[in-house]
Amino acid sequence: MNVQADDFFFSGLNIMGNTSNAVGSKVTPVTVAQLPGLNTLGISMVRIDYAPWGINPPHTHPRATEILTVLEGSLQVGFVTSNPENRLISKVLQKGDMFVFPVGLVHFQRNVGHRNAVAIAALSSQNPGVITIANAVFGSNPPIAADLLAKAFQVKTSVVDQLQSKF
Amino acid sequence: MNVQADDFFFSGLNIMGNTSNAVGSKVTPVTVAQLPGLNTLGISMVRIDYAPWGINPPHTHPRATEILTVLEGSLQVGFVTSNPENRLISKVLQKGDMFVFPVGLVHFQRNVGHRNAVAIAALSSQNPGVITIANAVFGSNPPIAADLLAKAFQVKTSVVDQLQSKF
Amino acid sequence: MNVQADDFFFSGLNIMGNTSNAVGSKVTPVTVAQLPGLNTLGISMVRIDYAPWGINPPHTHPRATEILTVLEGSLQVGFVTSNPENRLISKVLQKGDMFVFPVGLVHFQRNVGHRNAVAIAALSSQNPGVITIANAVFGSNPPIAADLLAKAFQVKTSVVDQLQSKF
Amino acid sequence: MNVQADDFFFSGLNIMGNTSNAVGSKVTPVTVAQLPGLNTLGISMVRIDYAPWGINPPHTHPRATEILTVLEGSLQVGFVTSNPENRLISKVLQKGDMFVFPVGLVHFQRNVGHRNAVAIAALSSQNPGVITIANAVFGSNPPIAADLLAKAFQVKTSVVDQLQSKF
Amino acid sequence: MNVQADDFFFSGLNIMGNTSNAVGSKVTPVTVAQLPGLNTLGISMVRIDYAPWGINPPHTHPRATEILTVLEGSLQVGFVTSNPENRLISKVLQKGDMFVFPVGLVHFQRNVGHRNAVAIAALSSQNPGVITIANAVFGSNPPIAADLLAKAFQVKTSVVDQLQSKF
Amino acid sequence: MNVQADDFFFSGLNIMGNTSNAVGSKVTPVTVAQLPGLNTLGISMVRIDYAPWGINPPHTHPRATEILTVLEGSLQVGFVTSNPENRLISKVLQKGDMFVFPVGLVHFQRNVGHRNAVAIAALSSQNPGVITIANAVFGSNPPIAADLLAKAFQVKTSVVDQLQSKF
Repeated sequence: MNVQADDFFFSGLNIMGNTSNAVGSKVTPVTVAQLPGLNTLGISMVRIDYAPWGINPPHTHPRATEILTVLEGSLQVGFVTSNPENRLISKVLQKGDMFVFPVGLVHFQRNVGHRNAVAIAALSSQNPGVITIANAVFGSNPPIAADLLAKAFQVKTSVVDQLQSKF
Repeated sequence: MNVQADDFFFSGLNIMGNTSNAVGSKVTPVTVAQLPGLNTLGISMVRIDYAPWGINPPHTHPRATEILTVLEGSLQVGFVTSNPENRLISKVLQKGDMFVFPVGLVHFQRNVGHRNAVAIAALSSQNPGVITIANAVFGSNPPIAADLLAKAFQVKTSVVDQLQSKF
Repeated sequence: MNVQADDFFFSGLNIMGNTSNAVGSKVTPVTVAQLPGLNTLGISMVRIDYAPWGINPPHTHPRATEILTVLEGSLQVGFVTSNPENRLISKVLQKGDMFVFPVGLVHFQRNVGHRNAVAIAALSSQNPGVITIANAVFGSNPPIAADLLAKAFQVKTSVVDQLQSKF
Repeated sequence: MNVQADDFFFSGLNIMGNTSNAVGSKVTPVTVAQLPGLNTLGISMVRIDYAPWGINPPHTHPRATEILTVLEGSLQVGFVTSNPENRLISKVLQKGDMFVFPVGLVHFQRNVGHRNAVAIAALSSQNPGVITIANAVFGSNPPIAADLLAKAFQVKTSVVDQLQSKF
Repeated sequence: MNVQADDFFFSGLNIMGNTSNAVGSKVTPVTVAQLPGLNTLGISMVRIDYAPWGINPPHTHPRATEILTVLEGSLQVGFVTSNPENRLISKVLQKGDMFVFPVGLVHFQRNVGHRNAVAIAALSSQNPGVITIANAVFGSNPPIAADLLAKAFQVKTSVVDQLQSKF
Repeated sequence: MNVQADDFFFSGLNIMGNTSNAVGSKVTPVTVAQLPGLNTLGISMVRIDYAPWGINPPHTHPRATEILTVLEGSLQVGFVTSNPENRLISKVLQKGDMFVFPVGLVHFQRNVGHRNAVAIAALSSQNPGVITIANAVFGSNPPIAADLLAKAFQVKTSVVDQLQSKF
């Protein structure tokens, strides 16, 4: 009723994200949390910056499919199909290439070039959620029991301890 | 089951569209028609090129909300709310700015600069549809009766004839 | 919990609408705004009255399909398919005939008889919305820039000024 | 793609249904089975004729809400809320009155006048389904075991036998 | 945001329901009313206990499909398809057997053994609703008019009076 | 139309799954692949067996919420909320206790007792999908590049090699 243009507006997707972190990438999300006019409308967008060889680590979106297009650089992208096949569907993308990550599947991107890369992606929910596998599994608060994870990943507890110590 | 990476891949969104036409803009769509892996996934993407002062004329998407981000140039964008208010919600966007066009509403963009502009937009359907108002109303095949349109737009039939002769 | 029969009741759809206006028709809507019990239930109804040769001008419903049945008189009805075909799908209806207008498409009706016509239509949303093309495009508040519309409709700005002056 | 006007057209809703039957009413449905263009569009319509004191017996639509408007005559209408309240929400409707029957609830209409009544109703599915309680419970093929129904309705088996013999 | 484990937890589905009632069965529901964490998530569960020869009488769920599995005992189960077929689809289930009752259809279970039976069922809504046919039709508050029901079930009003007196 | 009772029937959920495997658990699914009558109905069920101290390792369902009830034994269950909190929401369940795992979130169960445990769970899709994190991330075919995973999990490549060698 009393909507204003600013309810449907967001600024700053041209600004390069800070990739000085452990994975060498930065996601700048524009979801209903940043852009209230998206409420109930079933869509959102993100900018992703990648340092050379930086990765957007394996993650899922519990409520959205993602479509990504490369603005700058070269990205290896992939997703893994669900049980029992666990097939890796992967491709190296150049500027102007696009790829789809179906709802809920584990997927990732990696900058496979010596210069920065940039992508724009859209998601089929105004509130898609992000689950970074490493953080959810080895970095939860409180932690998942180390012996449970040791059995899940079929390694010694000391390996799990090492993994959990990073997050 | 037997999906391949190419089912989820599309190439060429970096290629500038040919804007040498009456409206000075070109939409390059990537929907389920171009990218079969989008089937049932509820999302698609488009690139839009604008010559200086070019427009993406008033249109609707019957099955999708749109979120747009400006890659290059300056765009005036707007949508009109439904009856009875018919409020124009409008904004001038610069590089990196985003705007939302809610499902089914009449909206447009115009390049308000002396150089080319480029936008990337995403839509909340793999098959959003496009209805360009001028083409649907004055350029349908066969045409809508001129006297009906004259009454609808409250002008003489000769004005409608003139409008219909363009499409 | 404490619902009453009156929450699901509406009265007056037998009353002829006043068609003394520029288009010679009147829509009497019964949506969730008039009948609160429709909330979340995905349906609504309207009565439409048409003076002789009156029209329900080209419009869309952004969130609903419409199914219409003629109670009295003869109506020419039609909708236009989306780009790139823009095919006009049209029919003359007599009393007891029905027609479907798929979600989001531009459609219209015209009384093609010398006496009043009446139709009942149902829509697949409790809040379907109505966008009258002429009002949204040439009658918004504030107006869409005349030179933008001149380019969209490929006419001189003076023609657009004339169109905008009517709304 | 190759749709024709007739795919969206149905004729004959002005024809009075034959109410010479045990309940004194006749429903003329226009669903996707009669009107193929309704496919996936989420709406349908019916005409209902009622002889004096005729009833549309208690029934449910497993996949649709119904909105009904009275064209001629007077109808008592009602629906029953779900467990544990089982409240009867009821009203007498005159010409031009409307009533809503929420999805899946048991509802009915009765002509409470000495002349024929007619209603038009719309349903929020192209394939709403109809379950007439008496037929489903006492007239299924093969029949539900009489002792089971006797326990359900807390009557002697002979009463169930009597009920089952009617269908 | 501030969710706690107890928001997603419910206790007591191991407790046998009290089947000392007219139908010899007891449903223990776990829907959003009992387990708030189910809100918007589209699923719920119930435990059903049956005394020997007890029944879960004919009923519908207006907003859910049900899938049932037998934990103990033998159950005859069935549902009736919608008009015009009204086919009874029925089966005797043993421990470990499962059956599906599609959304909105009339269905029932009966313990066909000399000892208690137990089933667990899941429903495709956090708020599925239950309409027990006997209670809705013959036990509503206020009652449906006896002569209307007499016509619907094609029996004398005295039979309806008898049926209504039980609820 | 020609459905039979067997289309809605499945047998064998009483049979204990074979838990002689690396994780000490076995999931027996009943989805549309096993029970065709579930098609389009939005629900499925599974039985899960757990050897003493066996686990159902961290996994997600890309298209379903899960509700689980313990039939025998004691289970520690948990899910991790999405970024940025990654909170572990966890509980120890006894016989008759229930827990909800919201759509798409990483979750697990562990038998925390010296005897076998059994659970029944329902999922809000006829085709929920399962992504076992360890298999998808470290056991895909072909494998995800070890150096990418090393960066994602912040460990040496030799640790990733060790993890990948298990699957």
